[in-house]
Amino acid sequence: METVNPADLQLILDEIAHSMAAATDRGQPATYIPELGRVSPDQFGIALCLPDGQQLSAGDAATPFSIQSISKVFTLAIALGRLGDALWQRVGREPSGAAFNSIVSLEHDRGIPRNPFINAGAIAVTDAILQGLQPRDVLAELLQFLRMAAEDDNIHIDKSVAASELAHAHRNTALAEFMAAHGNLQNPTALTIGTYCHQCAVEMSCVQLARAGRFLAGLPGCPRPVSPSRIRRINALMLTCGHYDASGDFAYRVGLPGKSGVGGGILAIAPGRASIAVWSPGLNAQGNSKLGAEAMEHLGRATGWSVFG
Amino acid sequence: METVNPADLQLILDEIAHSMAAATDRGQPATYIPELGRVSPDQFGIALCLPDGQQLSAGDAATPFSIQSISKVFTLAIALGRLGDALWQRVGREPSGAAFNSIVSLEHDRGIPRNPFINAGAIAVTDAILQGLQPRDVLAELLQFLRMAAEDDNIHIDKSVAASELAHAHRNTALAEFMAAHGNLQNPTALTIGTYCHQCAVEMSCVQLARAGRFLAGLPGCPRPVSPSRIRRINALMLTCGHYDASGDFAYRVGLPGKSGVGGGILAIAPGRASIAVWSPGLNAQGNSKLGAEAMEHLGRATGWSVFG
Amino acid sequence: METVNPADLQLILDEIAHSMAAATDRGQPATYIPELGRVSPDQFGIALCLPDGQQLSAGDAATPFSIQSISKVFTLAIALGRLGDALWQRVGREPSGAAFNSIVSLEHDRGIPRNPFINAGAIAVTDAILQGLQPRDVLAELLQFLRMAAEDDNIHIDKSVAASELAHAHRNTALAEFMAAHGNLQNPTALTIGTYCHQCAVEMSCVQLARAGRFLAGLPGCPRPVSPSRIRRINALMLTCGHYDASGDFAYRVGLPGKSGVGGGILAIAPGRASIAVWSPGLNAQGNSKLGAEAMEHLGRATGWSVFG
Amino acid sequence: METVNPADLQLILDEIAHSMAAATDRGQPATYIPELGRVSPDQFGIALCLPDGQQLSAGDAATPFSIQSISKVFTLAIALGRLGDALWQRVGREPSGAAFNSIVSLEHDRGIPRNPFINAGAIAVTDAILQGLQPRDVLAELLQFLRMAAEDDNIHIDKSVAASELAHAHRNTALAEFMAAHGNLQNPTALTIGTYCHQCAVEMSCVQLARAGRFLAGLPGCPRPVSPSRIRRINALMLTCGHYDASGDFAYRVGLPGKSGVGGGILAIAPGRASIAVWSPGLNAQGNSKLGAEAMEHLGRATGWSVFG
Repeated sequence: METVNPADLQLILDEIAHSMAAATDRGQPATYIPELGRVSPDQFGIALCLPDGQQLSAGDAATPFSIQSISKVFTLAIALGRLGDALWQRVGREPSGAAFNSIVSLEHDRGIPRNPFINAGAIAVTDAILQGLQPRDVLAELLQFLRMAAEDDNIHIDKSVAASELAHAHRNTALAEFMAAHGNLQNPTALTIGTYCHQCAVEMSCVQLARAGRFLAGLPGCPRPVSPSRIRRINALMLTCGHYDASGDFAYRVGLPGKSGVGGGILAIAPGRASIAVWSPGLNAQGNSKLGAEAMEHLGRATGWSVFG
Repeated sequence: METVNPADLQLILDEIAHSMAAATDRGQPATYIPELGRVSPDQFGIALCLPDGQQLSAGDAATPFSIQSISKVFTLAIALGRLGDALWQRVGREPSGAAFNSIVSLEHDRGIPRNPFINAGAIAVTDAILQGLQPRDVLAELLQFLRMAAEDDNIHIDKSVAASELAHAHRNTALAEFMAAHGNLQNPTALTIGTYCHQCAVEMSCVQLARAGRFLAGLPGCPRPVSPSRIRRINALMLTCGHYDASGDFAYRVGLPGKSGVGGGILAIAPGRASIAVWSPGLNAQGNSKLGAEAMEHLGRATGWSVFG
Repeated sequence: METVNPADLQLILDEIAHSMAAATDRGQPATYIPELGRVSPDQFGIALCLPDGQQLSAGDAATPFSIQSISKVFTLAIALGRLGDALWQRVGREPSGAAFNSIVSLEHDRGIPRNPFINAGAIAVTDAILQGLQPRDVLAELLQFLRMAAEDDNIHIDKSVAASELAHAHRNTALAEFMAAHGNLQNPTALTIGTYCHQCAVEMSCVQLARAGRFLAGLPGCPRPVSPSRIRRINALMLTCGHYDASGDFAYRVGLPGKSGVGGGILAIAPGRASIAVWSPGLNAQGNSKLGAEAMEHLGRATGWSVFG
Repeated sequence: METVNPADLQLILDEIAHSMAAATDRGQPATYIPELGRVSPDQFGIALCLPDGQQLSAGDAATPFSIQSISKVFTLAIALGRLGDALWQRVGREPSGAAFNSIVSLEHDRGIPRNPFINAGAIAVTDAILQGLQPRDVLAELLQFLRMAAEDDNIHIDKSVAASELAHAHRNTALAEFMAAHGNLQNPTALTIGTYCHQCAVEMSCVQLARAGRFLAGLPGCPRPVSPSRIRRINALMLTCGHYDASGDFAYRVGLPGKSGVGGGILAIAPGRASIAVWSPGLNAQGNSKLGAEAMEHLGRATGWSVFG
């Protein structure tokens, strides 16, 4: 395995941040959640954690942002810990070939979402965790997991974002009701969707997110909430399904497992080498951070960190 | 990177071959190509090539079989060498979320196949290589590529299988004509489909196939027909799209880039570690080798060779 | 226009009722609404109203049943009276080529249901009527419309059926929420779906339903709540879309505008000649009354009442 | 049945022709068949045949045009005469809810086209007629049928249009090959598609077409190649499926069975009252004659000839 000198890495991050600061075409922040639409697209941050415990960062790496769908990685980890392989009776493991919020394949597949990283699948995962609990307990467990993984207690839910999502949750509610019609929802829709909207509204900075991802990269000296074999499987799902209908393109260009959120964040994992978080609020046509994806491609090229050779 | 002792590896392969010989539920050989339906499902072979040049094998590893869709990996390598990124104007890079021979997404995407490993995409790739050449030239180039990569001149096309495919090529012809209707076919349909049916009818043994895959694993001391950055990208496509609508499941269970064929073969790549070929003719519901996929999962578990950590 | 002697007609109805009483394959009552699943499939009724004011009937023609989706004809008439052609901004006029409760075309058509007689379309129509009113006002208006059209005040909503529908309304709620996500729902989902479930639970007998349909047949001497040009258009929609994905088959076999409900009723219109209602609770694979459809085909053959010559 | 005075009818036709001559937005002639794209969109013709044997016309009613898909009505009549109800094992009777050349529903329905008036269905019908014959025999039979029905021997196939269609038949060939893959094509694809392209290239004027449609309207004193019960069923299919994905709209606006062709012609049937042909080459977004559809709506309003009351 080639190694990259940390000093060189810092230069790479600085160069990326500099180049992204100058970018003119920055994409559009998500508008379907009004609260997210207010975030300035001028921002860009990047942070990474290394096996030796070092943390590097550049740009707005300390600014908190809404992690949105990146939360799906952590709720999946929690759900697998709780239910084990029984979870896969409720959600599949295949790329969907469709948009993040599509309901078409849900009808074709009789209420079983294609994977845990499209909205329907993540709602099923949240519903599975919620079973027998109250939403506040589930959210507390998620925050505890994130704080433990990041070793940072300053991670919270942005209540105004959660409220904004809840007020515009018709499509997610449709997905939940459709699953309920097929017997694939265990809790009242309002409870599950309420929990889901709050989990998406967790706020973290790039630094916090990169730290929270260390366990997925298998970095030494950090908390290990999940077994190695399960980590591999979560990474596999991130690689095949982590960027909705642009997952293949991300694998092709970057070659690392990753998960994006409409808040503009991306968490990427270079197994054994680094946990990486980037953020820039403007999205591309597929709903992934435009500059974030470009930064990851730049970083991959500069470091050779692809899992593919 | 953990290393596995070659002696241990041979024991693992023997154990796999032994276990697969005893399997009772072996899947069903493909029947839509009559010539393939005649192959006995009792067979199983596995072979792998290592960085130190060693070759290990077990079972029917020297028996030639029809590589079928595994040929798509090599025609993609040839096409990228010939056209470079211009190829991506004719075919996408996303998992399809549908069966290998589905025409639905082709209508939705206006004649652009979702990726080069579903039938429509592979036909477009063959059509791109064929441009300005005769089918026999293209097939000669493919054989030359395979013989060079495997360092073995005893690789041929099975003419009776090719004829059987051509006699049952209605669905592939429909895909080609549909692309032609959208301006995404450059040669007469009969030429492209004729070439495609012959490329699928290449016969190789597990040993030959594992040797031909060494360049994708980046093993030292073998011919290098493709640049490292392009190898990474081919591997990425194999991981996200190599097993049709079971690609996510293979990534989840095995964690290696792979490509299956309806002849029952699978080529899998552990970058830097091994090139692996398995074969057993019986297929599962998704059209991939049933015992082959199980053997790969067994091997992955025993070696820890996942790209995901 | 050929005329059929009323005495002959009564013989035809008696023969139909006799033949249907003896039928062994009677279909299956709807089970997804438990209250409907309890109705005995042994029943069959038929009634018709003629231009001279005569009413003929046979079998269980006086037994009330749940009209279910047949209510969509009457809410459409009310909505067109209230909104006129503006209604067509919210719902289309084309056959859907899909099941009554499919959500697929709704995604493809961005929240605009294909026609007012599939569930999504009928929910949009109810939502349009509800605008600015309370559910009880809308339901009172519907009952008033039906009582006036049938000249019979003994028409009511079965509250236990309405409650049963509400308790199993996940799929309809999904359709409503999906439309809400596309801005095609004006009232809170619970209000619209609550109204919709109650309108479906109206109870009528074949005699009452045939009487309520007289205005669509343009029979003289009955109340005229809708203009002739609008009646033609409602009949056109019944013919092209009235039996979900079996509409073409009903047009082919019977040749009359008709609307079926999962309660087992069918209202059919022979313009200028008769208003016809049949009922038998067992459904065929498309969700239409099995014996009802057969009875209509028999009646059409015996009378030659097709609109097609 | 109301009657319209022939003198009044002539005035109505003149007014329609006058109004259509002045129309500025005339739609676009079909361009995917180059030969059709050369026809001037300035033309408009209308003709009708009445029960008393009178023929009325206005505008370019004597100008021959390519009847294209209107030929599907006549090949269906021939196929039903030859095969009877056995034809329905190869093609359905339901509106497709999709474009005329869509292949999506063909995959969903395993090679059985949804109805005989979309391209796939018409190809299956032609294939059924062709069984055991040569293309020239089938085309001779079609011409003979048309000449007999119109009582006019001057009806021919435009060879240059047929050649132009054949040169651009990729999509239709895809449909045929897809059906072949499902065992729903009996002849070599080239024979069936060759026949189909020629049948679409029949040239007729509005006057000839209206005369050829008299039997469908059941007008007295004309040849009767088809039984009354079968006529009703062909009319039913025209009403539910005759205008592709605008069939519901035509039924709603015009209320008559009709069949359109991309040459700009429409044949409409007012059972017992009139056979009507209109023609104007410019098409609307659904592929039907723009002015033709408007003229039919105007005529329907003026005469009250709807089948719906």
